[in-house]
Amino acid sequence: MKRKVTLKQIARELDVSISTVSKSLRNSPEISEDTRQKVQAFAKLYNYRPNNIALSLKNKKTKTIGIIIPEIVHHFFATVIGGIEQVANENGYNVIVCLSNESFDKEVINMEMLATGSTDGFIMSLSKETEQKKDFHHIQEVINQGMPVVMFDRVTNDVLCDKVIIDDQMAAYEAVDYLIGKGFKKIALVTTVDYVSVGKLRTDGYINALHDHDMAVDDTLIVKIEDIEHCEEPIAALLKTQKPDAIFAVNELFAVTCIKQANKIGIKVPDDLSVIGFTDGIISQYSSPSITTVSQNGEVMGGRAAKMLIDRLELEEENELYKTELIETHLVERESTTTL
Amino acid sequence: MKRKVTLKQIARELDVSISTVSKSLRNSPEISEDTRQKVQAFAKLYNYRPNNIALSLKNKKTKTIGIIIPEIVHHFFATVIGGIEQVANENGYNVIVCLSNESFDKEVINMEMLATGSTDGFIMSLSKETEQKKDFHHIQEVINQGMPVVMFDRVTNDVLCDKVIIDDQMAAYEAVDYLIGKGFKKIALVTTVDYVSVGKLRTDGYINALHDHDMAVDDTLIVKIEDIEHCEEPIAALLKTQKPDAIFAVNELFAVTCIKQANKIGIKVPDDLSVIGFTDGIISQYSSPSITTVSQNGEVMGGRAAKMLIDRLELEEENELYKTELIETHLVERESTTTL
Repeated sequence: MKRKVTLKQIARELDVSISTVSKSLRNSPEISEDTRQKVQAFAKLYNYRPNNIALSLKNKKTKTIGIIIPEIVHHFFATVIGGIEQVANENGYNVIVCLSNESFDKEVINMEMLATGSTDGFIMSLSKETEQKKDFHHIQEVINQGMPVVMFDRVTNDVLCDKVIIDDQMAAYEAVDYLIGKGFKKIALVTTVDYVSVGKLRTDGYINALHDHDMAVDDTLIVKIEDIEHCEEPIAALLKTQKPDAIFAVNELFAVTCIKQANKIGIKVPDDLSVIGFTDGIISQYSSPSITTVSQNGEVMGGRAAKMLIDRLELEEENELYKTELIETHLVERESTTTL
Repeated sequence: MKRKVTLKQIARELDVSISTVSKSLRNSPEISEDTRQKVQAFAKLYNYRPNNIALSLKNKKTKTIGIIIPEIVHHFFATVIGGIEQVANENGYNVIVCLSNESFDKEVINMEMLATGSTDGFIMSLSKETEQKKDFHHIQEVINQGMPVVMFDRVTNDVLCDKVIIDDQMAAYEAVDYLIGKGFKKIALVTTVDYVSVGKLRTDGYINALHDHDMAVDDTLIVKIEDIEHCEEPIAALLKTQKPDAIFAVNELFAVTCIKQANKIGIKVPDDLSVIGFTDGIISQYSSPSITTVSQNGEVMGGRAAKMLIDRLELEEENELYKTELIETHLVERESTTTL
């Protein structure tokens, strides 16, 4: 049986990265002449078929939208998909979902796969690794070939395309401002490492809110979590050594972990500690106490992204003017916060 | 711009169901000669391109697995996808996910779309509507054309294919047996309507466990929920009027709703009421009290389904012998149950 060789197989055979293969096949000047020739010869030998999107696009529409997201066990992304589905279906479009699992290589492979005739355009949120590498050639490539891309939530300024984001910095600012208004003085931040764009923006919002109230930023009150699977320890250490009176956590898993760890060492939420999370998911609703949180409106975000993509797909002429839409957030007050 | 007409558009134009269009295009004898001709003429006029899977299959492999699931905002399905992804990636396969949103029409459209060259085979869980209609022609059709299908969780005996299920009846039996062993006498069941196959099996397990302990089945203790979005009221009514001492709920949303409703009317879990759920998701872990539950091992189920599909895809010859694999469940004891 004749099998089509994949980018991944070529990369493995030649012991180079998937990105190198992808760029070589596109004659990118970033790749050395030698490597380019080697990759192209190999691809030719094994009948690698690059996508002829530009050609096929002129002739047919698949009426399908490709979604590429970092992960699926995450209520926020699930609600965004819900929002996309609804608007897509109303407009006669189908939706296909692929996961990057936070991997750059998987993101490239998924785009390549979907771009080869399966979809008319993309709605995507960047993988952590892609944000870290700052390598967006795969996205630029599909846009150059005439397939529109709408980015949401985790976006980059390095690619010109439509985007839907929340004002992460402002949302974080408002959450911290709310805590300051309730009288808290020792407000900790549990956030992600800086290369996750939304984590960085929310951190900035936290710092700005403190500044605007003439409160000092105390680095010992800021915990940057590298790996969400292992956030218990640094959070427990924060609670024990710094004894904050309030915490702003940049996602709901961090928030619920703060509450669980506080319980363990006898700190009561909200009596001894107020906690605000981010993302209004099922954990925030069902944890006990239920969690005060910044709602990201994932469904609205997904719907808006779908609308932007479909509008662009159905334009008769190309429009080089790209928009970035801001989705409103709001604070959902629940049981995990009180007044000092 | 020339657009490809879709099944849905044909159905709308001719005012017939998608299923009728799909069957007419395949010359199904279930459809009247008149309708068949009308549909086929229309399809021809608008250049509808039926899938030539049998043809394309012989020549190329996409190395892609199509997943069709009822919904995504459901931790169980998310963990199954995680398990499929892992095994698929290890074997050089990519994964594409489509949602039926519990709709028969969307399930048919998704299969049609993915079958037209995007995937080598399917892993799927039936939509509620498909289970209710008992119309599986779309699944039978792709199998006939040589694309293997593996069903998981919500399966049917009406289609011959590989299946991965848990022994829902046994798992429910064990949960109820556990409650009886703890001394409870008035054990309620919160389940789905009977046409959801797993709901029915879990109901049977509940009844068998009571029988085996010579306990009467009291219909007033059995609540069958039609719509998960509106389960609060029937659950509150059960708690108020029947005052059960324990509840077995067939999913974690029902379980956490039992706890929330009990709290509202001053019934304490686990002191006054023990609750066991089904599906070991994040709600069960983070709700307070955390919920004792039957773990479905979604990740194991997904991995096993992927293995079965890939094995079949890589067989040199056809094998008409289909397997149904049973995944082990186990009870995860947490805070929502006690001993009477």
